[in-house]
Amino acid sequence: MNRDLLFELIEALTILPGVGKKSAQRMALYLLDKNKDGAKHLAAILGESIDAINRCSQCRLLTSKEICQICMDSSRDTARLCVVENPSDVLAIESTQGFRGRYFVLMGRLSPIDGISPEDLGIPTIINRVKNESIEEVILATSSTIEGDATAIYIKDQLTDVKVSRISHGIPIGGELEYVDGNTIAKAIQGRIDL
Amino acid sequence: MNRDLLFELIEALTILPGVGKKSAQRMALYLLDKNKDGAKHLAAILGESIDAINRCSQCRLLTSKEICQICMDSSRDTARLCVVENPSDVLAIESTQGFRGRYFVLMGRLSPIDGISPEDLGIPTIINRVKNESIEEVILATSSTIEGDATAIYIKDQLTDVKVSRISHGIPIGGELEYVDGNTIAKAIQGRIDL
Repeated sequence: MNRDLLFELIEALTILPGVGKKSAQRMALYLLDKNKDGAKHLAAILGESIDAINRCSQCRLLTSKEICQICMDSSRDTARLCVVENPSDVLAIESTQGFRGRYFVLMGRLSPIDGISPEDLGIPTIINRVKNESIEEVILATSSTIEGDATAIYIKDQLTDVKVSRISHGIPIGGELEYVDGNTIAKAIQGRIDL
Repeated sequence: MNRDLLFELIEALTILPGVGKKSAQRMALYLLDKNKDGAKHLAAILGESIDAINRCSQCRLLTSKEICQICMDSSRDTARLCVVENPSDVLAIESTQGFRGRYFVLMGRLSPIDGISPEDLGIPTIINRVKNESIEEVILATSSTIEGDATAIYIKDQLTDVKVSRISHGIPIGGELEYVDGNTIAKAIQGRIDL
């Protein structure tokens, strides 16, 4: 150990997304000077998580158990399955507390150019789950990009005997038409709802 | 272990300064999904630092050694000692590469109301260092607050037989008078320099 650990810690903290050198300095000094207990806890949890966290065998969300908290929760609506691209999408939807069904995380979107196939995304697992579980509706919440849309269409085509829906795209709540981009406005008009 | 480690890690990350729940989620998913090696390194360094890092016995900066990198560096100008309030001030000055002397970190400023005495700030150590080392100038870089100024004046009064200076306060470089607060302008006029 030749260099001072303080500077090594600052450097190690800069790997965090959104953290530059100044924030890393602030974090390191805070952890070592003001909150050693919190730092100890963070180091322990992080060390433990690296080995313990894998993918949920049912929905592919990150979890330290065989089956994640959400899939295990018996109070959840088993009839609705929401398909998303990333674990962060699950956390975003969960934070709204507006959806009580379950999830399936694709971990990406179809992209033949990058060699990402339906198997990589676990789409056969979705088809199996729809066959074997009492799922009534599959809600496709993939992103509104070309690949996200293509992924949604592909999944829809694979699923028969079940209702398949797509989350709506349009003007954000509180958004003013003046400041919304043209593609979104076009999508909002195209996807208009009868009143 | 009852809760999922993923959520425990997210919570543990929110202790970092400037990190809310959303950033913590992003960090946790990034560490566990995209950069397990970096996460392992961070956990190890952080765990090691907590016990290993203490204060430099000469300047009170945080360090994992008995004497910190800066105090050990023989290429530094031993004649100049810069007195600052916090370790972050040292890192800020170091990042400019404009000062090649050494530091002394007070770890606060004089505040009789909060019971912070000259002894708490290690001011006797400064006096001793000036007596025993070949220090020619003490540069006071405490903050330009009432307590910071009072601390600077107190240290100045304790030191005889040595040049004592205070860093200048005034208009920031690139700052326009129009947008600078009145106190700063008053200070800049008061501290004007002959050309």
